[in-house]
Amino acid sequence: MPGPEFRLAELQAQLGGEIQGTVDPILRGVASLEHATAEQLGFVVGGGHLKTARASQAGAFLVASSQLAAELDRPCLVVANPHASFARAVALFHPETAIQPGTHPGAVVDATVTLGENCEIGPGVVIEARARIGARARIGANSVIGADTVIGDDCRLYANVTVYHGCHIGARVILHSGSVIGADGFGLAWDTDRWLKVPQVGRVIIEDDVEIGANTTVDRGALDDTRIETGVKIDNQVQIAHNCHIGAHTAIAGCVGIAGSTRIGKRCRIGGGAVIMGHFEIADDVTVSAGSFAAKDILCAGTYTSIQPIMPHADWLKNAAQIRHLADMRQRLSALEKRFTEIAQKES
Amino acid sequence: MPGPEFRLAELQAQLGGEIQGTVDPILRGVASLEHATAEQLGFVVGGGHLKTARASQAGAFLVASSQLAAELDRPCLVVANPHASFARAVALFHPETAIQPGTHPGAVVDATVTLGENCEIGPGVVIEARARIGARARIGANSVIGADTVIGDDCRLYANVTVYHGCHIGARVILHSGSVIGADGFGLAWDTDRWLKVPQVGRVIIEDDVEIGANTTVDRGALDDTRIETGVKIDNQVQIAHNCHIGAHTAIAGCVGIAGSTRIGKRCRIGGGAVIMGHFEIADDVTVSAGSFAAKDILCAGTYTSIQPIMPHADWLKNAAQIRHLADMRQRLSALEKRFTEIAQKES
Amino acid sequence: MPGPEFRLAELQAQLGGEIQGTVDPILRGVASLEHATAEQLGFVVGGGHLKTARASQAGAFLVASSQLAAELDRPCLVVANPHASFARAVALFHPETAIQPGTHPGAVVDATVTLGENCEIGPGVVIEARARIGARARIGANSVIGADTVIGDDCRLYANVTVYHGCHIGARVILHSGSVIGADGFGLAWDTDRWLKVPQVGRVIIEDDVEIGANTTVDRGALDDTRIETGVKIDNQVQIAHNCHIGAHTAIAGCVGIAGSTRIGKRCRIGGGAVIMGHFEIADDVTVSAGSFAAKDILCAGTYTSIQPIMPHADWLKNAAQIRHLADMRQRLSALEKRFTEIAQKES
Repeated sequence: MPGPEFRLAELQAQLGGEIQGTVDPILRGVASLEHATAEQLGFVVGGGHLKTARASQAGAFLVASSQLAAELDRPCLVVANPHASFARAVALFHPETAIQPGTHPGAVVDATVTLGENCEIGPGVVIEARARIGARARIGANSVIGADTVIGDDCRLYANVTVYHGCHIGARVILHSGSVIGADGFGLAWDTDRWLKVPQVGRVIIEDDVEIGANTTVDRGALDDTRIETGVKIDNQVQIAHNCHIGAHTAIAGCVGIAGSTRIGKRCRIGGGAVIMGHFEIADDVTVSAGSFAAKDILCAGTYTSIQPIMPHADWLKNAAQIRHLADMRQRLSALEKRFTEIAQKES
Repeated sequence: MPGPEFRLAELQAQLGGEIQGTVDPILRGVASLEHATAEQLGFVVGGGHLKTARASQAGAFLVASSQLAAELDRPCLVVANPHASFARAVALFHPETAIQPGTHPGAVVDATVTLGENCEIGPGVVIEARARIGARARIGANSVIGADTVIGDDCRLYANVTVYHGCHIGARVILHSGSVIGADGFGLAWDTDRWLKVPQVGRVIIEDDVEIGANTTVDRGALDDTRIETGVKIDNQVQIAHNCHIGAHTAIAGCVGIAGSTRIGKRCRIGGGAVIMGHFEIADDVTVSAGSFAAKDILCAGTYTSIQPIMPHADWLKNAAQIRHLADMRQRLSALEKRFTEIAQKES
Repeated sequence: MPGPEFRLAELQAQLGGEIQGTVDPILRGVASLEHATAEQLGFVVGGGHLKTARASQAGAFLVASSQLAAELDRPCLVVANPHASFARAVALFHPETAIQPGTHPGAVVDATVTLGENCEIGPGVVIEARARIGARARIGANSVIGADTVIGDDCRLYANVTVYHGCHIGARVILHSGSVIGADGFGLAWDTDRWLKVPQVGRVIIEDDVEIGANTTVDRGALDDTRIETGVKIDNQVQIAHNCHIGAHTAIAGCVGIAGSTRIGKRCRIGGGAVIMGHFEIADDVTVSAGSFAAKDILCAGTYTSIQPIMPHADWLKNAAQIRHLADMRQRLSALEKRFTEIAQKES
């Protein structure tokens, strides 16, 4: 199955930018500098990659500046935002597989469901009562959509996704396999000698253009809703607890956990493996470093970190144990300073 | 679909407590103070919420004391345990959807399976040989139950749950979507130049009234069983390794990992993102703080913590790096103290 | 269903080693020392278990040395590598359930799919266009295999597994329930005021004899492939991001996250809950301790750690707060040392 091919000038017509160089090669794909062939486009974002680029077999480069282009012996397309142009170039060479409208006979769609125009319902899909599926939505094999849930236009649910009842998913949302939207939040009340379940009767609202990774979970609200605003991107194995509110265009890397009722601002970046405790507020434009643990409000934009440096285990044994003695060490240090000052005063 | 409605006096009949106030409003739901309407019940657990409660539109309040009620200008139901009464009130207004007994024609139930009375087997469900399903159990769409597994009465498995062969699930257990019960534990033996798999031939035993969150995994035992005692509540994305034993009424928040053969006591609370290493013992009534890492026995009740405070990244760069020098710092401090004492002795 | 039984001499014929003792008991299983009956084989790896072994009811023991055997009053099979022999003994007593070749009528297998000889395709399985399934492969109920994906001979996919399109799985690979292979990596380019998705067009390559745990995710590469080399063993709930390369025979425990483009060597051991950041290189034979966070290259074999010791919460409050003052403490310590040296010089 040969894919599409483009001359560099055709790419320029789609991506903008300026061509530097005289030949106009035919390109049949995008590749990493290490693996590119003469028919593939490479990508050079900074001077640090120049050496690798020169050694590469790539037929042309997408570069960030005409200076970079000048240092390369092959035709270049110079663009203002090479990351974004690169994303668009990859999409041109790798168009999504065409939608195959229709409902597979092996799907189980309740008679009260509303299906939009030209949507694709895969084999084994189950759609429960009164759910509404938008136009051109693709629901992958064996996914399950609960009663009264709304899936927007042009959504793509991969195989084995679960959306519980009564949730609301906007347009162009991507849900990867194994993701679970709308399971009960962890609401418990202690009742003498056992936990009583607090029924979780809120919803999950996911706005437009959100992507949610494989095996990520977003719990429904307890009374109010859990809300993921427009353009949020969430990686795999993330847990978003009940009543969280994630601001628009925030990106959350893999394995993050966000506890209940926390409100995260717009355009935040939450690094992989970070844990954010519940009932806190994170301002817009905050970066929480990967692996960090946040248990307080963060009210100013900026980067915040709480990780321990890794070291050879023998060093760690010596040093980390001292953390137990830090308060004592600080007190002893202050005592020494005081005694020292007394001596100095005596001497003067 | 209007839900049930109750006068406050009717709620009192169900929940106990005392009514303070003269009118007896009709209530059609429970809501957060922020979003409640005049036909909804609010919930005020402490004085800290009084201001929000007064500004709320709620028609009545569930409160913890008559003093609190006295400060509110609306009818109140005063109860001893407002969290538990709140949970019950939500359940009254939001009864579970009625079970729809029967086996969907799209389910695949082996001829040797025993189905209890009035259970509901959804479309796409697969139940393998000799499994036994209890009365009134609900098995959600596309869930798979392995051979010889027992599911107790009144269990609820949501969609896309997997229970491997030979496991034993008690009564009234809730398993959320994507949870996997009984996969092989991580048992490996190093054999010259490669890992050899240790067959995992134990079971998972889950006792009554347990709830297990979305995408949580509980591995089967290696030889003996993995056991989750009665009333344990486990949130999403938790990993319970082979041969763990979780004591009754313990609550485990999201993203926790518990390594093999660890024994956790009764009524423990394990905070989100905590990691508990293998072959340890945690006593009854222990709280492990969220984000903490426990790699030793904890034999006394109480709260235990091992997290690092989060700080602006620049501060972290300065301070966290010093952890590598703590042993050195402590030695230098001791040396200074010694020299100081020598001087002081000389002077006296 | 009685399982197979062996005399100890028959086990010796299969496992090698030497028998110490005069009787040759019939054994019907392997069990932990605590639960073994007189018809079961126990396992004693070191002197630390001698007391438990003597108190055990086990009919015979698998032991690491003839010295150990001499201290036990029951027949022993002395083997060089008791862990590996134990794994083999368990497999002898618990042979895998026999494969049931054939495609269940409830499976949906595209007409262009190639099925190997004697493979077993469970109910509800979906296999998309042009996929190839190896001989004797077992695909569990409701699993989904994407277009153009190759599954090797003798693979075992449990229920509810998802493998995206275009991936390549070697022979004898085990994928546990809920695992997702080949979902899109987390590739994003910031475009003025929103994220642009970078299409992920690489594959996942999994070599022979790999085992992947329940709910583990391995993302497809962005341009190049994500690769898991032969014999790698991965536990539950692990996240392997796009373009990672995991060296042969490495073992990765539960809840680990490995960020994009990181290269991990051969025979590494990554402890549970560890987080390894992206674009780093970990040498062969490195152990990363459980719960550690690695954000740098680790170029020498050995064990590396970055965890904080757990302590009673009150101690933690006192001590962990001091981490914010470490740079200051170190400076004060140096200042004191300097002043002290000045005094000492003055005095001498």
